[in-house]
Amino acid sequence: MKFVLLRMLSVVLIGTGNVAHHLFDAFYPKEDIQVIQVFGRNIRSLSSFEAKCAVTSVPENIIDADVYIVAVNDDAISEVSKLLVTKKGMVVHTSGSVSKDNVVAARKGVFYPLQTFSPKKEVDFSSIPICIEADTLQDLKILEVLAHKISERVHLVSSAQREKLHLAAVFVNNFTNHMYVIGQEICSKEELPFDLLKPLISETANKLRFLSPDKAQTGPAKRNDILTMQKHLDALENPIQKKLYQLISESIKEQNEKKL
Amino acid sequence: MKFVLLRMLSVVLIGTGNVAHHLFDAFYPKEDIQVIQVFGRNIRSLSSFEAKCAVTSVPENIIDADVYIVAVNDDAISEVSKLLVTKKGMVVHTSGSVSKDNVVAARKGVFYPLQTFSPKKEVDFSSIPICIEADTLQDLKILEVLAHKISERVHLVSSAQREKLHLAAVFVNNFTNHMYVIGQEICSKEELPFDLLKPLISETANKLRFLSPDKAQTGPAKRNDILTMQKHLDALENPIQKKLYQLISESIKEQNEKKL
Repeated sequence: MKFVLLRMLSVVLIGTGNVAHHLFDAFYPKEDIQVIQVFGRNIRSLSSFEAKCAVTSVPENIIDADVYIVAVNDDAISEVSKLLVTKKGMVVHTSGSVSKDNVVAARKGVFYPLQTFSPKKEVDFSSIPICIEADTLQDLKILEVLAHKISERVHLVSSAQREKLHLAAVFVNNFTNHMYVIGQEICSKEELPFDLLKPLISETANKLRFLSPDKAQTGPAKRNDILTMQKHLDALENPIQKKLYQLISESIKEQNEKKL
Repeated sequence: MKFVLLRMLSVVLIGTGNVAHHLFDAFYPKEDIQVIQVFGRNIRSLSSFEAKCAVTSVPENIIDADVYIVAVNDDAISEVSKLLVTKKGMVVHTSGSVSKDNVVAARKGVFYPLQTFSPKKEVDFSSIPICIEADTLQDLKILEVLAHKISERVHLVSSAQREKLHLAAVFVNNFTNHMYVIGQEICSKEELPFDLLKPLISETANKLRFLSPDKAQTGPAKRNDILTMQKHLDALENPIQKKLYQLISESIKEQNEKKL
């Protein structure tokens, strides 16, 4: 361990959504991190923490802690952090796209786990990159210790970098998932099971373990196979999907020319 | 096994590329399938089969077999199959996008493994869907037996269906990989390691095991988070990538409205 803390770190989780749940589950078994309270407006979501931890829905009842982790919707971060403005502990949010300075607090920071979380699906936190940011070196060290308790991959990332990282995440996660949605739609129109495509989807992702994506690129656009591309365009009925096919192909060709 | 063959099936592989190599490696250990020859124009590629199998680069020396598997580039399939026009065996190609009838032979068919193959990377054929097609029920049965020797997932897919399936594969494989390329480019401009995105990429693909892609969709476009989308558009410098961001977001929104 790089930084030795002489005492236990206490954490209050603000929020009861997906990220809060997954963070709670990751911190809970760790000996020298203690989640001492969960705060949330939604009584029903809050009740799921009750068996393991103190909970409250009353801002005035939020107790003192070393770190407050605000895991709420992006546009609520600023507002919710104001509830903690009198606290001495550090207040961090967990968002990819919100600047550190949106947190209203004396000691502010970011604790962004770069992953997509689904309800009820366990995740292995140890391999999830956690991007941290704080105002002072001392606070950064506290966040580093906290992050290292649950993950092997802790990165110092500035707000400006994090914004770009989040943009990149939109491409590789949200936009990629939309490619799957279109694949599913094409299959379903032909009464073919989407399962047919799943090994290909896995391999496309797995390939990145040994091949960088620019080297892994294949397909009609890469080969400039105009005949196949025209057949595909004719087969697509949805006008947006037609445009999408053309534009992504154009982008692949542009990328290809850059490398030549 | 659904169909009992009383004798061994003999196969001649036509082509020495990626697909030919991977098929050879899949068939080689199987007892009642015998790859009796590999034909190829490229002497150097051909030589890599020599230790395990008879090879030839002279069309006249191609020997008799039950099935000829033509694993060559799409636009060479028709021409190459003409070399086999006098053969009694079945001639099948391995392409996703070429019609069965492009094969010039008395007994023609398709043997399309739906996967992306990389040089030097082993694949587990048992889970790869193999899409087969033939003119007669008898030939279809032969292909089914052949396919079942190496895979548990054999599907009867018509040329028309296969064309759509290939289009879907372009979206989930080639276009998805291009999303990775853009993610990589954004990271590299910020001097952030692309490795940061890999757990997210894996999880996006793995999620499909328990969630269909239309239900797994998240992100600013899904939430219609106009502020974040505008920030992302401002951050993108490349005009094609800007257009791509807008169009994919538009397509996600359209998909979303369909479900409402």
